[in-house]
Amino acid sequence: MTGSPPDIRIQEVAPRDGLQNEMKWVDTAEKIRLINSLSAIGFERIEVSSFVSAKAVPALRDAAEVFAGIDRRPSTIYTALVPNRRGAERALAALADELNFVMSASETHNRANINMTHAQSFEALSEVVRSAHAVGKLVNATVATAFGCPFEGMQPFEKVCRIVKQYFDHGVGGVTLADTTGMANPRQVSQLLSKVLLLVPADKLTIHFHNTRGLGLVNVLAAYATGARRFDAALGGLGGCPFAPGATGNVCTEDLVNLCHETGLRTGLDLQRLIDLSLRLPVLIGHGVPGQVAKAGRPLDLHPLPERLRAVS
Amino acid sequence: MTGSPPDIRIQEVAPRDGLQNEMKWVDTAEKIRLINSLSAIGFERIEVSSFVSAKAVPALRDAAEVFAGIDRRPSTIYTALVPNRRGAERALAALADELNFVMSASETHNRANINMTHAQSFEALSEVVRSAHAVGKLVNATVATAFGCPFEGMQPFEKVCRIVKQYFDHGVGGVTLADTTGMANPRQVSQLLSKVLLLVPADKLTIHFHNTRGLGLVNVLAAYATGARRFDAALGGLGGCPFAPGATGNVCTEDLVNLCHETGLRTGLDLQRLIDLSLRLPVLIGHGVPGQVAKAGRPLDLHPLPERLRAVS
Repeated sequence: MTGSPPDIRIQEVAPRDGLQNEMKWVDTAEKIRLINSLSAIGFERIEVSSFVSAKAVPALRDAAEVFAGIDRRPSTIYTALVPNRRGAERALAALADELNFVMSASETHNRANINMTHAQSFEALSEVVRSAHAVGKLVNATVATAFGCPFEGMQPFEKVCRIVKQYFDHGVGGVTLADTTGMANPRQVSQLLSKVLLLVPADKLTIHFHNTRGLGLVNVLAAYATGARRFDAALGGLGGCPFAPGATGNVCTEDLVNLCHETGLRTGLDLQRLIDLSLRLPVLIGHGVPGQVAKAGRPLDLHPLPERLRAVS
Repeated sequence: MTGSPPDIRIQEVAPRDGLQNEMKWVDTAEKIRLINSLSAIGFERIEVSSFVSAKAVPALRDAAEVFAGIDRRPSTIYTALVPNRRGAERALAALADELNFVMSASETHNRANINMTHAQSFEALSEVVRSAHAVGKLVNATVATAFGCPFEGMQPFEKVCRIVKQYFDHGVGGVTLADTTGMANPRQVSQLLSKVLLLVPADKLTIHFHNTRGLGLVNVLAAYATGARRFDAALGGLGGCPFAPGATGNVCTEDLVNLCHETGLRTGLDLQRLIDLSLRLPVLIGHGVPGQVAKAGRPLDLHPLPERLRAVS
């Protein structure tokens, strides 16, 4: 968007993490239109869909058709979430640029989420990496529940670090730490990331926060202050939490971009275009979204004087 | 609540700033019950109501009855918002412990909000202070729109500092800086507060943020890091913004308390009791509230294992 590189890199996950739990079916053509609009705004990475069981995530059962239908902006990386080899093969057949493998730090959550033990997931990761590398594609690997598990509670930092190291030993190109159900807090974020950033350079580490307890932006700032530079976010703050009816989802892209711009951090993204696109989400999904800036406008979008004062001015 | 003094002092404003814009009439008895419940949780200060024109704020036209009906916890200060002498006299007659005078940094906003110039407001402040001191009561004075005005835009730091000094010259006991329509950002907060805290000791300065653009908690942390120690918040995040339909209101008390406790700051408040009380708000006001922690639960309120996993465990 501009000549200067961004200070913070925001990756858009609304099409995948945002839509995956929506009850209303979003037509394939609508998903493609949303992704094309996000591409036009200039995201470096967009998570397009996931290749998982259609029974488990019916909202994304059209992943292949969506990949086939989108316009590819050359400087955007279009990623797909995969939990296993079968998903990887489907994603590669759909010409995903990058695969995002996922396993939970909590083995209980991993079994609940994708019905695999850690050992089974690591075996799957080996297959996923082999499939991807065979066709020259990269794999990113996510540590879900890295900041806490709704069944097990907090996860030891050493465990998260060990998984990060194992991921790189398996040949991944990047790692994401995900706060799957919004349990992170800024003190914990600083403590964990100061350890993880000894293992991973900042340009290979993505942080994925949910706003389930209202701390999404607080945690992004803590992570940024500790040295993290890549963040997932979802337009409108789309995405729910299965354990908290009515709770918000991912960190909201336009709210994060507004925070960055207000504090002098370049994102390379146009806030007003994000707001315009976000305002179309309620029609798309059939209900309001939690993002705030789209409702309130940019801070310096001023209001006309009240009629009474104009009359006497 | 505990033997140790709190690290951060949270003052509850839901009964006044939270309810003032609600369309549904909340019965006087319900307001009294809410305030009594807040008292029982142990807030140091509760803003009970405002003594303004019943035409301007019909939702709080029962301010005197509410003050007459509440139980007074000896260690809680029950405050009333007043814009002028008439409001002050009514508040003192209702035995408010402290008057909270309000004037906007932006003269345009002051005229739109309370139909007074700065000169008229300062004259009113003199009268308010005189009335309060005559009966041994204190006055706190709020600078509304201190972090930005929806008509004029950002307010120069020098102007805000000048008003703060003038407030103390008029004999107030404390000052509040209010982000009336949620325009603040953490960089600005640090810059302004580092100047204001040269003029005011931290124990006489309250910061009042709105979450209109999702930055409420981010701004609280920035203010705390700069040295501020007293913050307004509203249960459930009650309170809207007249310029942003659907936008959230004040910083949410229970979300702030959760953030504090998760990061090791003592508030002296019991989070679970706040959540329990917040969960009663939707029935009281007839719609959902923006607070997140009441929906999601405390971070370590764990969930039972899914049935499938329990069967094989």
